[in-house]
Amino acid sequence: MASPTDPRDEPGGPRLSRRAVLGLGGGLAAVGVAAGFGAGRVTGAPTAAVTDDAEGTYPFTGAHQAGIVTPAQDRLYLAAFDLTTTSRDELVELLRRWTTIAARLTQGLSAGPFGPASGPYDAPPDDTGEAADLSPAGLTLTFGFGRSLFVGTPGPDGTPGEDRFGLADRLPEGLVALPHFAADDLDPARSDGDLVVQACADDPQIAVHAIRNLSRAAFGSATIRWTQLGYGRTSSTSTAQRTPRNLFGFKDGTANVKAEETDALAEHVWVPASDVDASSEWLVGGSYLVARRIRMRIETWDRTSLREQENLVGRTKGEGAPLSGGTEFTEPDFAQEGRGGAPLIAVDSHVRLAHPTSNDGVRLLRRGYNFTDGNDTLGRLDAGLFFLAFVRDPRTHFIPMQTRLSSQDTLMEYLTHTGSGLFAVPPGIPEGALVLGDDGTPVTTDDSPFVGQQLFA
Amino acid sequence: MASPTDPRDEPGGPRLSRRAVLGLGGGLAAVGVAAGFGAGRVTGAPTAAVTDDAEGTYPFTGAHQAGIVTPAQDRLYLAAFDLTTTSRDELVELLRRWTTIAARLTQGLSAGPFGPASGPYDAPPDDTGEAADLSPAGLTLTFGFGRSLFVGTPGPDGTPGEDRFGLADRLPEGLVALPHFAADDLDPARSDGDLVVQACADDPQIAVHAIRNLSRAAFGSATIRWTQLGYGRTSSTSTAQRTPRNLFGFKDGTANVKAEETDALAEHVWVPASDVDASSEWLVGGSYLVARRIRMRIETWDRTSLREQENLVGRTKGEGAPLSGGTEFTEPDFAQEGRGGAPLIAVDSHVRLAHPTSNDGVRLLRRGYNFTDGNDTLGRLDAGLFFLAFVRDPRTHFIPMQTRLSSQDTLMEYLTHTGSGLFAVPPGIPEGALVLGDDGTPVTTDDSPFVGQQLFA
Repeated sequence: MASPTDPRDEPGGPRLSRRAVLGLGGGLAAVGVAAGFGAGRVTGAPTAAVTDDAEGTYPFTGAHQAGIVTPAQDRLYLAAFDLTTTSRDELVELLRRWTTIAARLTQGLSAGPFGPASGPYDAPPDDTGEAADLSPAGLTLTFGFGRSLFVGTPGPDGTPGEDRFGLADRLPEGLVALPHFAADDLDPARSDGDLVVQACADDPQIAVHAIRNLSRAAFGSATIRWTQLGYGRTSSTSTAQRTPRNLFGFKDGTANVKAEETDALAEHVWVPASDVDASSEWLVGGSYLVARRIRMRIETWDRTSLREQENLVGRTKGEGAPLSGGTEFTEPDFAQEGRGGAPLIAVDSHVRLAHPTSNDGVRLLRRGYNFTDGNDTLGRLDAGLFFLAFVRDPRTHFIPMQTRLSSQDTLMEYLTHTGSGLFAVPPGIPEGALVLGDDGTPVTTDDSPFVGQQLFA
Repeated sequence: MASPTDPRDEPGGPRLSRRAVLGLGGGLAAVGVAAGFGAGRVTGAPTAAVTDDAEGTYPFTGAHQAGIVTPAQDRLYLAAFDLTTTSRDELVELLRRWTTIAARLTQGLSAGPFGPASGPYDAPPDDTGEAADLSPAGLTLTFGFGRSLFVGTPGPDGTPGEDRFGLADRLPEGLVALPHFAADDLDPARSDGDLVVQACADDPQIAVHAIRNLSRAAFGSATIRWTQLGYGRTSSTSTAQRTPRNLFGFKDGTANVKAEETDALAEHVWVPASDVDASSEWLVGGSYLVARRIRMRIETWDRTSLREQENLVGRTKGEGAPLSGGTEFTEPDFAQEGRGGAPLIAVDSHVRLAHPTSNDGVRLLRRGYNFTDGNDTLGRLDAGLFFLAFVRDPRTHFIPMQTRLSSQDTLMEYLTHTGSGLFAVPPGIPEGALVLGDDGTPVTTDDSPFVGQQLFA
């Protein structure tokens, strides 16, 4: 291992050597490594694009974790983990390993050398290999902590959970147990978890490869609790992105908070110092991730008239314009009346109930994906929307809105929530804080930073 | 509806009008329709590529169905259907509807007008809408018939199945009930089916949209029996394509039959007139589709040494070269010996047992995909290879090889076959045989062709 170098010490940042990750000779290494950690975005994929040639990478480090305001990539693989260890030290070690691997993978490197670089040939490769010839595909990895990490899981009889890691007094106030909502039919095997990792990329093989290698590195400390594959991002997080469609065939996320709206991000997404007491200062600059697996009654929807569909949503199906007129980005005019004095946008329509004017001005940064998980025993599609939102505080930014929607929104007739998770998402590792060896691997010492480190300070 | 016109009558083929499919105004119609049916390939995706701008379409018509030698797209959604009707006429009507929809979808049109073009607004849209803004993404739709379509499903006590459609005497000899293989642990809910539709595209939303709309058109006649999503094609079907990797991290399909190998296709893929008797003449120019859901023991594999992995496969993990030396496309030298006189490529290695020299010269056209279907209750990945192969006759081109592999190939220790299907794939609809109205919709009369029509002649 070469001596540590700080990428900030070298003008233009370091050039990572491919040599040390080759192991087995040319042609096998990951591509697109000509970018230093902490450098500005090097190349990217402003629109959804999967190509063998794209070398898009996003920096792993920054004030906030990547994968939140990053222009939404087109594919998702999200995994929730439960810890099998009860050792705080092992938890920290796991987060250190994950940091190292995530810093490498997001820059287009392998999880580790293919074939032990200097060790015996008779050991498993450090990387599972299936991403070897692929581009980084804009991979981001975003880490979060579930409520059970802090206070364990209550027993069925209501007995309190166990504080396994001495973290109970660091529980952020917003990391509540979500209440039951009207449309909930939650499967515990698709809900909650101690840890979450959101992998987004423009190639599903890249996202799956990342989770697989992180899961492998967790062996002995944590196991996967549930996972969700998603495709066809259902929100834009940048004004440069086209508004996508959900499986109801409607444009979704027109009013989403976008990366370019710095003030709105500060108001609605990032946890500010003013929100927290001393115990949860570690979360400042972070966010909360709300994950909801929303199954759509596709077959029923498909037999609904166009008029009914548009009235339920409150927008036209083609253009996505509010029924009060205009084009997609025209503000809805909820007061406008049609024949007989009824509002053009129905009072129980989705667009009205989800609009900031119905929610004390609250806006969400949504980052959801469509999912299709095969068919149920009746041949019906098990498909829908995997809702992901990053919010400043779920008590103000999700619970009131979902309470209203689940009880009043007529669209709910076609929706069932089948999975749920809420996670505190720590801030990022500051630019330049990761010290890299010349093989691109962060050099970890007792002092080196890792994702979520603030929680353990 | 305009009067039928034969696209062959017009130089350069017709330009399909977008107008009639718009229904709701501009911006909603499918894109990439500037291509006539039966025209040569217009634009395409020679390498895996998903972009919002690609307008790649493949012709729906031709001597063979598309989706067999078509350069393998990067995503798959395959659905097996069971018929709920017992009416031969309804079966034919279903195939006619599917032909119309497939001819439209593969050319980038919607399944039907969004919002009834001339009908009442208070009817469901003819297309579900979620592909409205997307490119055709190289969509192909390939149709096949299962053994149960001809002879029904035998009862658990061995009683013969029912010939519901008067097709028993048209059963092709090769459409056998596959024998039990050593590594089989088949789930009936993931196996067989009366009909199959393979949707391949470079965007999963396009493939899922196609199956969804075909499924919708089958309402009352057929229901989905099982489906499989796949990504990261694990074979190349064109010499222009890079060899992809499976979830073992190895290159897969190096020796695949490629579209460019016309003689090999004739020898190994297409059903020749010399193979069939009068009852199955309808299958000449068609093929057989073998589908096998092969779960990989990922976690166990990941703990196996590199040496062991390479010995099991018989190739290097990095380059994919045979262990006898050379590069990926070097022919394996099975006679070459290493230290102690043992063959460099083990006698029970996958590459040796799957090689044509071990299989009477047989080669397959493989078209498989990786799959990841979440995790089992132990947190292990439910992932692997969805094996698809098109062959001239499964009795010579699949059963002997699989019998040998499942009993001798040491790689089988890491594999379980969990689903299986065998389907007869009829030939294509000849170029120019589909008569199109000026909205791009095939004009169906009692005489107009449909997929599988030969079976009913």
